[in-house]
Amino acid sequence: MSGRISRRKLFGLGAAGAAGAAAAGAGVVALRAGGEDTASTSAHLTSASDAVPFYGEHQAGIVTPAQDRLHFVAFDVITDKKAELAELLQEWTAAAARMTQGRDAGTFGAVGGVREAPPDDTGEALGLPASGLTLTVGFGGSLFDGRFGLASRKPAALADLPKFPGDALLPEISGGDICVQACAHDPQVAVHAIRNLARIGFGRVSVRWSQLGFGRTSSTSRAQATPRNLMGFKDGTNNLKLEDAALLRDQLWVGGDGPGWMSGGSYLVTRKIRMTVETWDRAPLAEQEEIFGRNKGEGAPLGAKKEFDPIDFAAKDSAGEPVIKVDAHVRLAHPSNNGGARLLRRGYNYVDGSDGLGRLDAGLFFMAYQRDPHRQFVPVQRALAGKDLLNEYIKHVSSGLFACPGGVRDAGDYWGRALFT
Amino acid sequence: MSGRISRRKLFGLGAAGAAGAAAAGAGVVALRAGGEDTASTSAHLTSASDAVPFYGEHQAGIVTPAQDRLHFVAFDVITDKKAELAELLQEWTAAAARMTQGRDAGTFGAVGGVREAPPDDTGEALGLPASGLTLTVGFGGSLFDGRFGLASRKPAALADLPKFPGDALLPEISGGDICVQACAHDPQVAVHAIRNLARIGFGRVSVRWSQLGFGRTSSTSRAQATPRNLMGFKDGTNNLKLEDAALLRDQLWVGGDGPGWMSGGSYLVTRKIRMTVETWDRAPLAEQEEIFGRNKGEGAPLGAKKEFDPIDFAAKDSAGEPVIKVDAHVRLAHPSNNGGARLLRRGYNYVDGSDGLGRLDAGLFFMAYQRDPHRQFVPVQRALAGKDLLNEYIKHVSSGLFACPGGVRDAGDYWGRALFT
Repeated sequence: MSGRISRRKLFGLGAAGAAGAAAAGAGVVALRAGGEDTASTSAHLTSASDAVPFYGEHQAGIVTPAQDRLHFVAFDVITDKKAELAELLQEWTAAAARMTQGRDAGTFGAVGGVREAPPDDTGEALGLPASGLTLTVGFGGSLFDGRFGLASRKPAALADLPKFPGDALLPEISGGDICVQACAHDPQVAVHAIRNLARIGFGRVSVRWSQLGFGRTSSTSRAQATPRNLMGFKDGTNNLKLEDAALLRDQLWVGGDGPGWMSGGSYLVTRKIRMTVETWDRAPLAEQEEIFGRNKGEGAPLGAKKEFDPIDFAAKDSAGEPVIKVDAHVRLAHPSNNGGARLLRRGYNYVDGSDGLGRLDAGLFFMAYQRDPHRQFVPVQRALAGKDLLNEYIKHVSSGLFACPGGVRDAGDYWGRALFT
Repeated sequence: MSGRISRRKLFGLGAAGAAGAAAAGAGVVALRAGGEDTASTSAHLTSASDAVPFYGEHQAGIVTPAQDRLHFVAFDVITDKKAELAELLQEWTAAAARMTQGRDAGTFGAVGGVREAPPDDTGEALGLPASGLTLTVGFGGSLFDGRFGLASRKPAALADLPKFPGDALLPEISGGDICVQACAHDPQVAVHAIRNLARIGFGRVSVRWSQLGFGRTSSTSRAQATPRNLMGFKDGTNNLKLEDAALLRDQLWVGGDGPGWMSGGSYLVTRKIRMTVETWDRAPLAEQEEIFGRNKGEGAPLGAKKEFDPIDFAAKDSAGEPVIKVDAHVRLAHPSNNGGARLLRRGYNYVDGSDGLGRLDAGLFFMAYQRDPHRQFVPVQRALAGKDLLNEYIKHVSSGLFACPGGVRDAGDYWGRALFT
């Protein structure tokens, strides 16, 4: 079955909504310098240090070519005053607009303010360039529980994810009222951004959980090579990419399906997937490749030669058995097995030290953006959770679902304004 | 008081021992390519992708210009057979010699072996360059407890560190029989190396604890800018650096002071120092600067202008008070306050998610190399633990002391051979 047909069936929205693959990189190089702004426009474009534009129709950090490092945080809101929350979102937006351009979090910076007051910026990114930093905000279902009078504004798409077979979710590292995804090429820059948002939010939000990641496990642009996950396989070969304008319109961005405050937005599903790498490392190469349905070196579908070769799910071997097993990961996750559902994945590898049982605490922090998780992530994960051969080696320990609104249009706009006004 | 005089007093060894500041970088670029080695010598030198030589008088990863990322692991030995342990060290050394040159951990690599067996390499670094990877091994005091007949070989310098005021050490993330420090410019490369050593050690060692770090918090070469810790201050301005040949000979490398198997080696102290960054961020700039004794922007000693200006501990302000407080960090830690003791620091910032109390679990993973911890780290830490104004904002939660032997000389040598033979 062709994904081209089924994705139309999936939403039936065709040409609705704007195209809008965000432009990447802009040649703006800015260095933080204490209390001063020293942004300058330059023709020189270095992907690792450049600034990504903050304002736009969509939030940056979704189709932006995936940066190398992640710091993700989920906050609980601890004020019960809607006005305070809206004020915080305005303060955060102003700080994000500055930090993503390589500037301090606040006007007076780390060292430029009154010496008798705490600095306006924590300072650990002084002298570092923007490093491709993007900050992307999302609202969890719990934000609509009635504390802030937002219950009627909750999108149907933000309904809780079902429990999947094998889920071993830890509530203390799941959910959250508001999430912020910080991606950058320098972890110090990503950490600095989250830490300053937490600082600004003091007394109004509290860090619920936070996750660092490295080695992006998906490409979001055809200009990027496909990276490898901690099982050693290329990951995200068939990911949605920023060049797929029609698919992004159909499967990534919220259009007329509303609610209005989510127009131009997208839904983010996060899953922390622990891998028992020590067990995996003792599995024969042939078994590893059968489980994924791809070879390990090139990433080609079994029976094919190159990574991007089409996958022949009907092919049989000389014994009459399917070349790609019926429960192989690539078959179960494929759009043709899931009514055409596609995801824009943006996950990262993680190692959180060790687990006290002699093993590394390692795996994949899965993140996927989509137009409707209940029509995209949920059927795919249902197929995987029930049958995937990979399940012997993985365990989902955290889950999150967040509604990420459209982009901040200009300096008068702020994160979620359409929801709060 | 001048450090030049007191460091002589400290060891009284003057000209003994070879100079040996290890050469950095070699222009060898190697890309992992499945089962094949594709190392090639190139005139092109890019610090972020190059290989650091593995063989030498000293282990790499000590004076090597500090790379940007860390994965540190401490293992418990779970075999009680000395021969098995020595065999493991030989296997590890062979794998380390390969991986540091950008090659797979084993001859057949990730995809070049028999398909019915587990691969010789886990594969997540396929296609990535050497990335400046260094692997540095150390032996903890517990390795000399009698299990392996090594009790009589234990150096006096490896005696347990004393308990310091305020220590809040967690035994499960402290100590260990053997440590390996992996430093690289790409975290995926550092993680890959540690993970493959753990894989090779299956059944003989077990991961006791492991720590990731980023944003090196010290320079080990004058060619590097001084980086910033998560308090936003430049860290390690007066660090020992690879260009300090005489100081390294006196204060870094074990010479004739023995034991013989430690000749050319050094002692590593690790301390995981949790920072309560949320509290720190609410301290006024003036207080932060008084605590460190330096200004935040430039890193200059208070009362001076530039980072490397000499520190005038005798200077008084107009009220007759010391410009640099008597309990300021820079004063207490300074060699002139500690009998000339210097350290080669090689720490990293860390964020391990959040602590369940609404705060980031963040701080500094302190690592320092030295000739004798009981004459260097211990007096410095005694001075700091008792009085340092910084103690209000930090807590030592993990501690390690490891004897890192001299370098592996050639392919016939291995980590710790002089100890095991």
